[in-house]
Amino acid sequence: MQSNSSQSSFRVIGSSPVRPGDADKVSGQALYGIDVTLPDMLFGAVLRSPHAHARILSIDTRQAEALPGVKAVITAADLPDLTEKIASVGKWGRYLQYQNDNILACDKVLYYGHALAAVAATNEHIASEAVELIQVTYEVLQPVLDVEQAMQEGAPILHADLRSGANKSGNQAQTNLASHVQLTRGDVEKGFALASVIVEREFHSATVHQGYLEPQNATALFSASGQLTIWCSTQGSFSVRGQVAEILQIQPVHIRVIPMEVGGAFGGKNRVYLEPLAALLSRKSGHKPVKMVMSHSEVLSATGPTSASAIRVKMGADSAGRITAATARLVYAAGAFPDSPVGTAAGVLFAPYRIENFLVDGYDVVVNKPWTASYRAPGVSNAVFTCEVLIDELSEKLGFDPLEFRMLNGVHEGDQRPDGQEYQRIGFLETLEAARKHPHYTTPLSAPHQGRGVASGFWSNGGGRSSASASLNSDGSVNLVTGSVDLTGTRLTLAMQLAETLGIPIEDIKASVTDTDSTGFADGSWGSRTTFATGQAVYKLGQNLLHLLGERLAEIWQVPTEQVGYADGVFSAGEQKLTFKELAAILSENVPVVASAAVNPTDVGPSFATHIVDVEVDPETGQTRLLRYTAVQDVGKAIHPAYVEGQIQGAVTQGIGWALNEEYIYAEGGRLLNPSFLDYRIPTCPDVPFIEPVIVEVPSPSHPYGVRGVGEMSIVPPPGAIANAIYAAVGVRMEVLPMSPGRILEALWAKGLPKSP
Amino acid sequence: MQSNSSQSSFRVIGSSPVRPGDADKVSGQALYGIDVTLPDMLFGAVLRSPHAHARILSIDTRQAEALPGVKAVITAADLPDLTEKIASVGKWGRYLQYQNDNILACDKVLYYGHALAAVAATNEHIASEAVELIQVTYEVLQPVLDVEQAMQEGAPILHADLRSGANKSGNQAQTNLASHVQLTRGDVEKGFALASVIVEREFHSATVHQGYLEPQNATALFSASGQLTIWCSTQGSFSVRGQVAEILQIQPVHIRVIPMEVGGAFGGKNRVYLEPLAALLSRKSGHKPVKMVMSHSEVLSATGPTSASAIRVKMGADSAGRITAATARLVYAAGAFPDSPVGTAAGVLFAPYRIENFLVDGYDVVVNKPWTASYRAPGVSNAVFTCEVLIDELSEKLGFDPLEFRMLNGVHEGDQRPDGQEYQRIGFLETLEAARKHPHYTTPLSAPHQGRGVASGFWSNGGGRSSASASLNSDGSVNLVTGSVDLTGTRLTLAMQLAETLGIPIEDIKASVTDTDSTGFADGSWGSRTTFATGQAVYKLGQNLLHLLGERLAEIWQVPTEQVGYADGVFSAGEQKLTFKELAAILSENVPVVASAAVNPTDVGPSFATHIVDVEVDPETGQTRLLRYTAVQDVGKAIHPAYVEGQIQGAVTQGIGWALNEEYIYAEGGRLLNPSFLDYRIPTCPDVPFIEPVIVEVPSPSHPYGVRGVGEMSIVPPPGAIANAIYAAVGVRMEVLPMSPGRILEALWAKGLPKSP
Repeated sequence: MQSNSSQSSFRVIGSSPVRPGDADKVSGQALYGIDVTLPDMLFGAVLRSPHAHARILSIDTRQAEALPGVKAVITAADLPDLTEKIASVGKWGRYLQYQNDNILACDKVLYYGHALAAVAATNEHIASEAVELIQVTYEVLQPVLDVEQAMQEGAPILHADLRSGANKSGNQAQTNLASHVQLTRGDVEKGFALASVIVEREFHSATVHQGYLEPQNATALFSASGQLTIWCSTQGSFSVRGQVAEILQIQPVHIRVIPMEVGGAFGGKNRVYLEPLAALLSRKSGHKPVKMVMSHSEVLSATGPTSASAIRVKMGADSAGRITAATARLVYAAGAFPDSPVGTAAGVLFAPYRIENFLVDGYDVVVNKPWTASYRAPGVSNAVFTCEVLIDELSEKLGFDPLEFRMLNGVHEGDQRPDGQEYQRIGFLETLEAARKHPHYTTPLSAPHQGRGVASGFWSNGGGRSSASASLNSDGSVNLVTGSVDLTGTRLTLAMQLAETLGIPIEDIKASVTDTDSTGFADGSWGSRTTFATGQAVYKLGQNLLHLLGERLAEIWQVPTEQVGYADGVFSAGEQKLTFKELAAILSENVPVVASAAVNPTDVGPSFATHIVDVEVDPETGQTRLLRYTAVQDVGKAIHPAYVEGQIQGAVTQGIGWALNEEYIYAEGGRLLNPSFLDYRIPTCPDVPFIEPVIVEVPSPSHPYGVRGVGEMSIVPPPGAIANAIYAAVGVRMEVLPMSPGRILEALWAKGLPKSP
Repeated sequence: MQSNSSQSSFRVIGSSPVRPGDADKVSGQALYGIDVTLPDMLFGAVLRSPHAHARILSIDTRQAEALPGVKAVITAADLPDLTEKIASVGKWGRYLQYQNDNILACDKVLYYGHALAAVAATNEHIASEAVELIQVTYEVLQPVLDVEQAMQEGAPILHADLRSGANKSGNQAQTNLASHVQLTRGDVEKGFALASVIVEREFHSATVHQGYLEPQNATALFSASGQLTIWCSTQGSFSVRGQVAEILQIQPVHIRVIPMEVGGAFGGKNRVYLEPLAALLSRKSGHKPVKMVMSHSEVLSATGPTSASAIRVKMGADSAGRITAATARLVYAAGAFPDSPVGTAAGVLFAPYRIENFLVDGYDVVVNKPWTASYRAPGVSNAVFTCEVLIDELSEKLGFDPLEFRMLNGVHEGDQRPDGQEYQRIGFLETLEAARKHPHYTTPLSAPHQGRGVASGFWSNGGGRSSASASLNSDGSVNLVTGSVDLTGTRLTLAMQLAETLGIPIEDIKASVTDTDSTGFADGSWGSRTTFATGQAVYKLGQNLLHLLGERLAEIWQVPTEQVGYADGVFSAGEQKLTFKELAAILSENVPVVASAAVNPTDVGPSFATHIVDVEVDPETGQTRLLRYTAVQDVGKAIHPAYVEGQIQGAVTQGIGWALNEEYIYAEGGRLLNPSFLDYRIPTCPDVPFIEPVIVEVPSPSHPYGVRGVGEMSIVPPPGAIANAIYAAVGVRMEVLPMSPGRILEALWAKGLPKSP
């Protein structure tokens, strides 16, 4: 069939219809995990370690089991023995063991809050009481929480079996260094020799959390026939299925994961915590459903925050303003188990700039903190912060406007990324140009201790596997279903892409997310991939549907399929014409019209952003107040501009929290001191000015409608932009995140400004 | 791709694996509608009419609304005004109005139990109390419950607008006769003239109910954004969606129906009762979820039982034993609104026999009883009963063995059905042959008042629309999903067909039923259609999957798709070979493998059955005890023989209830006297002997594996077979269903045997 609908003038894409489910969320009808109630449901609670590092000598659950109302108690002994499995899968086996150890500590507890037993009882109170009755004897060990200390010889060792390949001397000594990555190009010595200015600094960043408001929760029903159903709050239902299958050694086909509405995730809801516990408790309690909900304190102390880091960066530029060389040494805290995003950070740090000579080393180090997880552009904000501060310093020292300096060095189509991939059409320079032209950049600041900063950043975005299917209704409406969990309004952005492809109104499409039994495989909603990759599946699905309808119509009209055309919502062949709705009505008593499609794009359009921020720093208190914020981002094509703006604003807000306030504070001995939203300070409305999003649209060649991922990008520039603004305001180059009042004061004092008290 | 898997020797079909969900049902983990609990859920209750026929003068809901805890009260005034809609859709409009009137009575109540208001409150007790507080003033009218009385001039009229087209005189007088169908062939007068024996009788049958143990239930959440979600016990989730959309005038795409496990249906859960009420109450109560569950008394008095009937049949045969002519006049009680299955009954009554001259008239008559609904081979058991009694009488009078007589007259491939369709390959004669050869037929009876009867029957089975989709997992397992509600184990029989088509073990397939948002359209699970029609969709789906896999493999192997073959679970091209599982693993990191398919078969293989029953009648009490029962049925191909046997046994059991005990008993004035399972007597274990199923397999040419529907057929012969056995035992030809002890006694007394008391 010929489909000659033009994609140059969009009908639906680029509009901002109201999200169908919003009213339900606001008025309380949307169903979250906490809303799940099942007959005879039990409630679970978890015993967590009060120590950051200790050997478990014994766990006695008898008193807990004896408490009336307690139906099951589990420890690591209830997890399957992975010995054989691990032997059979090689290197991956060690990861499987880590995964299980994080669910329930086996020999050692490795961080404050580490789970080591769980209870199911007839109500929450009995479950909590029973947890208190579990007797654990520990041999308390010295913990190590700082990445650099953890790398030092003689540091307390977390994993006896960890012998890092990074140790090239053949030394097989125990270590906390899990892995080392290196990226290099050219000759850095030669490069630095060409520089007229060289800057170098050592930066540190604290552990921060995604700060989603909905805590982790899971309800599991492990039935007598061996079928496990899990209701939970997750970014990826198939990922939960896969992880639970691995942890419990069950065939995935016997697990059904029903993703509920999600109250915030930002990368923190990719990994499972409660799901395997609820499943085990359900099985052990005689197949009763078991519900588990974390407290906020558990969320902060025992789910996956991002990596703290120590990063040394050195950059040189010549007098013409060209960066000649750069080196970086990134040391990332993986938390209790290996696998920090240091590899990603290493590839992203210098990505916006043409640098002929660079050397980047990344070190993944285990410490006695919770196992880190993804957080919006994982590991990148703290890395890019360091580069952008030095770029600002180079600009200043060479007498360049910081945007001009970035334009001079910015990457173009055809340049190579640090990881060796070639850039296709990208929009970095367009964001710099838009920032320079923005009134914000030229409006003078009016008061003392005010300053303006800019920073840019790169994010690769994700591709991955997605499926979509659809069913045509007799009134011409279409039910669209995917397994891609909707974190950000993607039901609507996917429906819009289908509406565009089919040439029908957006009101005629209802998009749903369904469970793992009922839909094709989808990777989780991470990497800003859903509108992009699942969008491609939806586009392909639309094409399949039109093809199917063309075939049906060709039969009805008795013409060859190739003669059936479709444009502007009307099928035609010669003089014969039928609208989409008319055809749907005709086919309604016929064979149902259903179609499906799947994709796995590896060619993904990356994004760039450039932010401008004005701050005022109180030199007496060290407090930084944000006056104005403008975030320019290349989004490829904004399917739903209002959502894109919301994503940019949300990402900037999280970046502001990371820049100014958020950090895990540990007591001596490794106890987390601030596991609550009173003490772990995420930005609230008074902390954040209006964030003006500026959408730049340089269509991605790797998506039929030009989409790039948008959700993560704008969390990257804020720390750098704010640090540069603070420098402009009070003359100190901040080297630590968060740049909290105390740290700014210390920096000011170090410079003797104002007088230290 | 070449797929040369042989279908002549089945690997999976014909085995009887254990149904995966059975353990869950037995041990209480399977989730039924009654298990649904939502946050802030309200409970609904219904005000029902105490009168069988009355005009509603006023409904005052103020007191109910004022009761603390009551959140919403609705009456027919809350249903949408259909005036415009009805005008626009012609004749169908009247049906729309009936549909709404049955949900909530508007001007008149038309049967005892007719809903006229509903309440939602914070608990069941308040809801019930509130219902009592609703004040209704009635003008009580004379009811009419008997079909023949309802047809008489001067009978109370139910619907002022009903002017039957059956009245050919042009008389537009009000009537209770909703419609008249006629089927005829040849010349009956000539036919009867050729007969050497003519028999004629007038039969009556009572209203009976499907008697499912799980009452109707529905939970609805009508959200602030206009999205309606319904959890319910239904045979057809899409049918619920369609009916609720019509009744409430909502676009179907905004309704999501989640079908829960079903605790019996048998045709009675096609029509909606509570669903629109719960939806309206949810909307009116400020978008709270509302749960409604019928009591068994409500189920019996206000859902849809089957039609009572009055049937006059006349048949003639010549001395060679050939039926020469037959006439029938069927008068069916539709209940309060038109649409009894009399049309179906008219077409089925004489379907097993070659009759050159026949005339069948069917009358659809409204009476003051609940609106009838489908019940397993709707309307057919009571019709076939009449024919089979006369066949027995003709056999006797002409001196034929009753099976021989049927063989002589039985239909063959190429014969015409009464409705004009031509029989393809059918298995009627095979069932007669199997019955004749069965030891049961030749084993002598040993005691007085024992008798043996046989009867046959025909059922057309259903086709209709079905969809299926599937997703391949990395371990080679497959998730299969359809919208076809599983009443009888069809998840497994569909999985078996997919396993057969794909050449993989049944354990590797998990089949699920999902909601209307998440799957392609499926007609309800009625007409014994699911294993047949959805089975065809699944077969097509399997072919699509294999084709897709062949294409992928051709790419990997770099050969033309046509060169990839598949047999016995192994793909091959030349020397290259990969098992299904190996290919799944290879593709797991690739584009997900998903496929879908849909069908709408109109060409459906009908089924025939022949039953043998031995009875002993106590002439003192009139009680009939069943001694032995053998049910021979042509099932085409038994996918899962154990299930097929279960279906036959279950259908016979219901037929026995219909034959011997079940009936609605009304008081003067139309109040139902026995709406409870204590007083409405369905067979229990002591009532039923072991029912021996005999599977005959004459493959249906209209299904790739030869399947015919099996679920309904065997409810048809029991009344006739038992009547004929009673005649053999005590010499009375029963003309009324149920043939309860009282009726048998009366018949014996009428013959003076034994002496009347």
